[in-house]
Amino acid sequence: MSEFDLIARYFVRHAHPKNRAMLGIGDDCALLLQQDGMQTAISSDMLVEGRHFFAGTDAYKLGHKSLAVNLSDLAAMGAEPVAFTLALSLPKADEQWLEKFSAGLFALADEHNCELIGGDTTKGPLNICITIFGQTPIGTALRRDTAQIGDDIWVSGTLGDARLALGAMHKEYELDAKTLNAAAVSLHTPQPRVALGLALRGVAHSALDVSDGLIGDLGHILKKSGLGATLNVDTLPAGAMLQKQSVEMRRRFTLAGGDDYELCFTAPASRREEVLGAALAANTSVTRIGSTEATPGTRLLDSDGKILDLQLASFDHFA
Amino acid sequence: MSEFDLIARYFVRHAHPKNRAMLGIGDDCALLLQQDGMQTAISSDMLVEGRHFFAGTDAYKLGHKSLAVNLSDLAAMGAEPVAFTLALSLPKADEQWLEKFSAGLFALADEHNCELIGGDTTKGPLNICITIFGQTPIGTALRRDTAQIGDDIWVSGTLGDARLALGAMHKEYELDAKTLNAAAVSLHTPQPRVALGLALRGVAHSALDVSDGLIGDLGHILKKSGLGATLNVDTLPAGAMLQKQSVEMRRRFTLAGGDDYELCFTAPASRREEVLGAALAANTSVTRIGSTEATPGTRLLDSDGKILDLQLASFDHFA
Repeated sequence: MSEFDLIARYFVRHAHPKNRAMLGIGDDCALLLQQDGMQTAISSDMLVEGRHFFAGTDAYKLGHKSLAVNLSDLAAMGAEPVAFTLALSLPKADEQWLEKFSAGLFALADEHNCELIGGDTTKGPLNICITIFGQTPIGTALRRDTAQIGDDIWVSGTLGDARLALGAMHKEYELDAKTLNAAAVSLHTPQPRVALGLALRGVAHSALDVSDGLIGDLGHILKKSGLGATLNVDTLPAGAMLQKQSVEMRRRFTLAGGDDYELCFTAPASRREEVLGAALAANTSVTRIGSTEATPGTRLLDSDGKILDLQLASFDHFA
Repeated sequence: MSEFDLIARYFVRHAHPKNRAMLGIGDDCALLLQQDGMQTAISSDMLVEGRHFFAGTDAYKLGHKSLAVNLSDLAAMGAEPVAFTLALSLPKADEQWLEKFSAGLFALADEHNCELIGGDTTKGPLNICITIFGQTPIGTALRRDTAQIGDDIWVSGTLGDARLALGAMHKEYELDAKTLNAAAVSLHTPQPRVALGLALRGVAHSALDVSDGLIGDLGHILKKSGLGATLNVDTLPAGAMLQKQSVEMRRRFTLAGGDDYELCFTAPASRREEVLGAALAANTSVTRIGSTEATPGTRLLDSDGKILDLQLASFDHFA
């Protein structure tokens, strides 16, 4: 099967419901027209076999996750998904794999009205690079550098189940099959919080998505906004499977687990009702976990209000 | 060196001359604002070590080429470069490599006023994925599906020297060092024909860039426009080093060499003077090599006007 046949068979769809692209797959470039009053939010993520996912990962789930991590970046900006490009390096033209991968990819894309408008396919070690495009009215994007002193710090959904599953898969510890399978749902098919991000426009002061671990990612907001924070560690919402583990593990994996794809955001204390209203409208739970303050650094408190001294490292690809 | 340090040291530049991005590297997404009356042209290319370039390729040249192939896609649409994202998978955080790669990348980016606005870095087999953004006034993009019957077919620059160098590097044949080095310039540091693409807006009927070999790439224009063509094979402009080789090799490598990154375009015969004027304005040579016609298929003629029966295959990543 040639490269052009591959593209045509699995990735070209002629009747996308929205057809926002003026010109899509099959020319040197796709052409996109921005709506009046809108700006375009752009993010690229690269997923590498053996690094971001195990060799042999189910292709349907991989298709889902590849787009989910990009949609999560749009969610973190409060941007509405519009379109994406897919660059794919494959060891071989495996039709069964492509069929499943594209099915998982398009199922999530359709859910978010996000159109595939171009890309590249080549032979090589398995590597999936998606660049995604979203839109926000000019000036409304949720940024990292705009948190204010005294903001509440919030997180969506739950944290740590993806890390719990990953640790078992890496043989750090054993989990019974039922627990592992349940936790692995968070790892393999994260649900990007697009609706919540949209609902938080004009309410939150700042936001990002938690991909490398809460404490490290929150650190980006704090650093860029010139602030510090206090977190009430035992209020962090642990995943259903992580809740059954030790306090020590729960603290570690909620604070620095990684692969959560939840939103962490800050909003003024005066707008708690609006935050809860946005969460309700988006059908996504949110938990208030601390607050920002002028003093640099992040202080971790236990349920008695005592300082916790935990050694934690955010995930780093070259550490 | 951590991922964040890497990004900061080699890829974040605070004082880009144009600063078209409203928000650049360091948030979940970059933010771009489209100018009034413009549409955005988008293209993604993925370069894999061992497939698109040899292991050990000079990092400066690789930085140049990675962006050049994307700029070439903008050129082929008649789009003005605006910005790009870079996703990079690296086996290790090699500072010397990164310094050279980023220098080659930014030298070409600056030449074309094209700003790096975001991306991703990760550990893995060397893979470079750039997504590029350009702009064209709405309705002016040079497409593949808009060639007309009786158009002249043109190609920019020269063809085949990249393929000539590649064959010697693959030990298909031997070249003396001087010839190989001269031919390899085309392979390693192609010059994207951005100025020519811009000058051809409103003049050419259709265009694309020649990356997989002229005859296969021209075939995309013909197929999408529902046309056929006759090419005068011996008028094809061979690279300076290829000109010294056999007629057979010259024909084969100009027709189906690959890696040329020249523009192939069609324009009405009534506008030859304007095409030549555009080429002059862009300081890029162009050669008229044939014409389109209603009869499907591509007929190849020699210098006596006799039909040539050549077996040629366009480059295909999964063939």
